[in-house]
Amino acid sequence: MNKNVNMEDIVSLAKRRGFIYQGSEIFGGLSGTWDYGPLGVALKRNIMNLWWKMFVEGREDMYPVDSAILMNPKVWQASGHVDTFTDPLVECSNCKGRFRADKLDDPNKCPNCSKEGTFGEARQFNMMFKTNVGPVDDEASISYLRPETAQGIFINYKNVVDNFYPDLPFGIAQQGKAFRNEISPRDFVFRSREFEQMEIEYFIDPKDWEAEFEKWMSLCKEWFMALGLPEDSVHELEVPAEDRAHYSTRTIDFEFDFPIGREELMGLAYRTDFDLGNIQRSAGKSMDYIVKGSNERFVPHVIEPSFGVERALMAVLSTAYTEDEVNGDKRIVMKFPNHLAPVKYCVSPLLKNKPELVAKAREVYELLKKKHGAVMWDDNGNIGKRYRRQDEIGTPHCVVVDFETIESDGLVSVRNRDTTEQTRVSIEELIK
Amino acid sequence: MNKNVNMEDIVSLAKRRGFIYQGSEIFGGLSGTWDYGPLGVALKRNIMNLWWKMFVEGREDMYPVDSAILMNPKVWQASGHVDTFTDPLVECSNCKGRFRADKLDDPNKCPNCSKEGTFGEARQFNMMFKTNVGPVDDEASISYLRPETAQGIFINYKNVVDNFYPDLPFGIAQQGKAFRNEISPRDFVFRSREFEQMEIEYFIDPKDWEAEFEKWMSLCKEWFMALGLPEDSVHELEVPAEDRAHYSTRTIDFEFDFPIGREELMGLAYRTDFDLGNIQRSAGKSMDYIVKGSNERFVPHVIEPSFGVERALMAVLSTAYTEDEVNGDKRIVMKFPNHLAPVKYCVSPLLKNKPELVAKAREVYELLKKKHGAVMWDDNGNIGKRYRRQDEIGTPHCVVVDFETIESDGLVSVRNRDTTEQTRVSIEELIK
Repeated sequence: MNKNVNMEDIVSLAKRRGFIYQGSEIFGGLSGTWDYGPLGVALKRNIMNLWWKMFVEGREDMYPVDSAILMNPKVWQASGHVDTFTDPLVECSNCKGRFRADKLDDPNKCPNCSKEGTFGEARQFNMMFKTNVGPVDDEASISYLRPETAQGIFINYKNVVDNFYPDLPFGIAQQGKAFRNEISPRDFVFRSREFEQMEIEYFIDPKDWEAEFEKWMSLCKEWFMALGLPEDSVHELEVPAEDRAHYSTRTIDFEFDFPIGREELMGLAYRTDFDLGNIQRSAGKSMDYIVKGSNERFVPHVIEPSFGVERALMAVLSTAYTEDEVNGDKRIVMKFPNHLAPVKYCVSPLLKNKPELVAKAREVYELLKKKHGAVMWDDNGNIGKRYRRQDEIGTPHCVVVDFETIESDGLVSVRNRDTTEQTRVSIEELIK
Repeated sequence: MNKNVNMEDIVSLAKRRGFIYQGSEIFGGLSGTWDYGPLGVALKRNIMNLWWKMFVEGREDMYPVDSAILMNPKVWQASGHVDTFTDPLVECSNCKGRFRADKLDDPNKCPNCSKEGTFGEARQFNMMFKTNVGPVDDEASISYLRPETAQGIFINYKNVVDNFYPDLPFGIAQQGKAFRNEISPRDFVFRSREFEQMEIEYFIDPKDWEAEFEKWMSLCKEWFMALGLPEDSVHELEVPAEDRAHYSTRTIDFEFDFPIGREELMGLAYRTDFDLGNIQRSAGKSMDYIVKGSNERFVPHVIEPSFGVERALMAVLSTAYTEDEVNGDKRIVMKFPNHLAPVKYCVSPLLKNKPELVAKAREVYELLKKKHGAVMWDDNGNIGKRYRRQDEIGTPHCVVVDFETIESDGLVSVRNRDTTEQTRVSIEELIK
């Protein structure tokens, strides 16, 4: 990150301008949950729709699914999550506070009550949220909120193969919510208890894994470019064997220079046939893929690019966040790429108490709104204040109808967010 | 419904063609959950995006939010859900089966083991899924999966007013998952435990409620038209006072002639200031709206149109499902409106073993795919089989490149799904 962006500034702008609010704020909040306001919804949709266009609709080898969040618990037994999806938890015998043992600054001193030596042995705490499905609350009715969307893909692999019989390689893609009962959620939307994933399981012939892995590395980089992330803020971390899951032969973590430091943005993993193999054993059903026109059959291997929506969004927010000076005043401006900006145009009459200006501005507004949807009307306060407000939400263009528009040149003023320069443009050109 | 459509036929087609699968099917399923396959995802997205365009992006008085599924439990205490969101549950003392008391055909005989007189008193069973948030499992950490998206809107009312200060009337809209622990989920996706809602809370001056209610009735009818539902299959049920929630002065249920009978498609309710009033009391924070340029202040009243995605989807599926005869053979065809069809075009070479046909067809495919995204390549089996397959998934147009295309007229054959008629069209015209 070239710029010095504080997390607090982003959190504050996100709340002040209607991007992201603390979850359940009015009732005191619920730790690790976040609610998206109107501009956050728009930004998130733009990111998710861009991904969909790039990785699903724009390809012919991708099959989307939308699996349920509540699944048969056998899914999580087969995947290993029931046994091993855990974090080490310690409890302070003095204040009863509970903490993630591997994240303590001082493993001996309680960060809550400051007493020393109050932690017992760490126990393994399963991060899956539990619930009971059906009218009987017992062991047999326990189910979990999915901690990842990936398993919802694997359990539908056979459905997709049976229905569509795609050639190898092919992918199954899913966007959707996932839940992890983090002991200590933190860093804004970076590590929350409820989040959104965009995952692809790309099924391949194992002999091709290296080439396919390389292709997906390039595609991930294209994605970062599409998000407008600066190249020098994204780093490839080749995860060493001792840190990889035991079944993975290669994993790359793409890290980003977030305001909180260099942290994981997304992961790309070669998962071999680990997941399909587990399902095959547990469900007792063959996961073989039969190569067309031959007798060759095998369980496909998998390359998994796993994208987190909130992390992409945080990277976009922190890349966009800029403080500069305009006419000697400090200005906060969100320099979103045009295609991600929640609002594309703001339209205003120069003065709100001049009916002829308002009427013309309404006309321009309606035309732009019809074309782009994401267009805002703003006649509040003076024009300078409107510009500052639009800068803070990252609107690339502010269109103003003034007296010249209706009295002489018929042109409107279009002000550029980044340069603050104004040009006069005809309405026809603007709409085009 | 004019036609005689069986639910079983739709369920079977949905599975066979990759629209909707039983949730967790490979592990024996999880009752009341459903997974969407590639075509179901596309259809669902088309419906949800249509709604978004019509009710959010196409309007200037609508503010979208995306609130967390996990909320502070006080939300559900304040709303009354903890106390009253229940169904009456009876247990058979013989087989231990549990049933919804108000849905029994014979309130005296167990539908599972057929014993009579084995039910005790019905008890109230809360339909919210419970879970524990955070590392301590106790009463204080209990939270619920939201049983509706509406409360996620109400708790953000003040955020939206503080950030945007919209004029009254204005709406807050949300799409998202909701969960209800139905005692007896049934009728395919009609009554499931996990489902998707599209809800709007429209905040009004109470003196305008009747006019605003009428406007929303018209908008709901526009929505049914946009879905392509036959007018005579949708019915307005004016819910009588004794069946309405106590706070509601008017509720309309829009019912649809589903294959399972006439059932609720969506609801429109005047909810007064019931919800904001509850939050104001419970959270101790004013929900007043201050009318601009005056001292007038009041808690706005609310009109709530509540749309269920799965019910809209079921209505669309059952409207589209048609059996007819083509050349003496029975044909199943999904007559989706073009804008909802999961696949817009299918492109094929007449024969797959003629490289010159394949090359030209690929060219056409790429052009269409670039423009529409939802375009399928199919060179599998003979042309008649391809048409039948595309009919079953409701593809409006099948484009075939044949020998004439490359040898004489340069035109492609475009076959109409509904009439089965073929016309020859130039590639330029097709792309346009």
